[in-house]
Amino acid sequence: MPLTTPVQLRFSDIDAFGHVNNTIYLSLMDLAKTRYFIEAMGGELDIRKAGLVVVNVNCDFCAPAFFDEELVVITLTLSVGEKSLTLEQEVVCPAKDGQVKCRCRTVMCGFDPRTMTAIAITPEWRNALEKMEGREFPLNK
Amino acid sequence: MPLTTPVQLRFSDIDAFGHVNNTIYLSLMDLAKTRYFIEAMGGELDIRKAGLVVVNVNCDFCAPAFFDEELVVITLTLSVGEKSLTLEQEVVCPAKDGQVKCRCRTVMCGFDPRTMTAIAITPEWRNALEKMEGREFPLNK
Amino acid sequence: MPLTTPVQLRFSDIDAFGHVNNTIYLSLMDLAKTRYFIEAMGGELDIRKAGLVVVNVNCDFCAPAFFDEELVVITLTLSVGEKSLTLEQEVVCPAKDGQVKCRCRTVMCGFDPRTMTAIAITPEWRNALEKMEGREFPLNK
Amino acid sequence: MPLTTPVQLRFSDIDAFGHVNNTIYLSLMDLAKTRYFIEAMGGELDIRKAGLVVVNVNCDFCAPAFFDEELVVITLTLSVGEKSLTLEQEVVCPAKDGQVKCRCRTVMCGFDPRTMTAIAITPEWRNALEKMEGREFPLNK
Repeated sequence: MPLTTPVQLRFSDIDAFGHVNNTIYLSLMDLAKTRYFIEAMGGELDIRKAGLVVVNVNCDFCAPAFFDEELVVITLTLSVGEKSLTLEQEVVCPAKDGQVKCRCRTVMCGFDPRTMTAIAITPEWRNALEKMEGREFPLNK
Repeated sequence: MPLTTPVQLRFSDIDAFGHVNNTIYLSLMDLAKTRYFIEAMGGELDIRKAGLVVVNVNCDFCAPAFFDEELVVITLTLSVGEKSLTLEQEVVCPAKDGQVKCRCRTVMCGFDPRTMTAIAITPEWRNALEKMEGREFPLNK
Repeated sequence: MPLTTPVQLRFSDIDAFGHVNNTIYLSLMDLAKTRYFIEAMGGELDIRKAGLVVVNVNCDFCAPAFFDEELVVITLTLSVGEKSLTLEQEVVCPAKDGQVKCRCRTVMCGFDPRTMTAIAITPEWRNALEKMEGREFPLNK
Repeated sequence: MPLTTPVQLRFSDIDAFGHVNNTIYLSLMDLAKTRYFIEAMGGELDIRKAGLVVVNVNCDFCAPAFFDEELVVITLTLSVGEKSLTLEQEVVCPAKDGQVKCRCRTVMCGFDPRTMTAIAITPEWRNALEKMEGREFPLNK
């Protein structure tokens, strides 16, 4: 099961076109990623030791979002490898028949913020994510 | 009754000190102001015609806020005049015995975004706000 | 010739890891895109009629950036088609031998903000961009 | 002499009214404060040991600012005390006869980010600031 996270818009998220600014989607998806990992880790996650860092995002901006729309972010894991994992996220408006505003694939690597170096994705992470979603993930290339 | 609005933090709200950045409090209080006015107006408010613009903020930053704290914003009206109204807002952490993170007094003036000019605070606004809070407001100087 | 745009960091751009937050790179690249298009258009560009909207970004986050680093964004056009154009941008630290912090490919479509609908990339745009860079662009697929 | 700092706007700074959003002024003034302190300290300042934290801001929003305006922030010290100092800052558009967009008084206290506790404003700070501005400051109450 993917995780669905309701997100809260701020007036300053809206740009001169009257749309949620593209840069804001990344913040919203970061928020949902954090909730997803906290959920997987059983409610305990110190973000300063979080062990994951974003190395690539590939986002399609599909439809403009507006201030008065209630949005949710749907987050699931596509694959997990030794050094990286890949998430898929959609920012969606349930009240508009699930219209997708933004769809984003994110590659994250293991990272130790104390030493600022890359580290492996621990089996602890893989197991926690698989348990939460209730399925096994394919291996990241 | 003041309005209590739960607010959602984003990872990018946290600055290099590990605190919610001061500038973010203004976004959070804007969010709460919007909810407060929408509530007063019975759920209908087009922010692009909103009729109010901030002319002064006076904020005390009382205590640092952290990413894993659940925060709410408490919003009430202090006074309403012909041309301006004054709100008081507090960003509070209920789980820490209501610790106040930030306290802010905001003066807003009537404003028509279509003509970009100052306008009076209409009796409609005053009445709606007084009805919502269930009390009469003193007159703004 | 690509356009090199110095960008200015703000304290609030730095996140809890002490790095420029990933979401900020998108703002910095937007800034550089605007300068690039203004430059191409001879200094005149009304962003509310700008005629272009981002439909996809694909960003590699290559190295962390820090508050005291002077960064520039290098912007060039990869290809131009009838309905879209593709830019490549790099956020670079010249003082660190041109270390690339972030590399991003952006697909933009023609867009009319007044009617909120897709429009063609006009020959005016293609010509202006080719003239600025001093070369012909391949056709976008 | 106050310090004048040119500031760079980003498209995402502009809100649904087409104005620089109020929250952005705080970021711009933070940027200018940092430059002001770095300048006073002779170019060397580690923001993570910066020794100062904002405890109050009082901002007047005087006129809307637009994306195509070149803005500067003028920063000066009003007074320095044992525990706090007070700055005055204006966001100004020189091309519009110095039109003031925002005027802000900021009270900052000594702060040690490593111990997260309040500390005195050291004579080193007072002397550096007085030397930079070329005058003596009144004592903060």
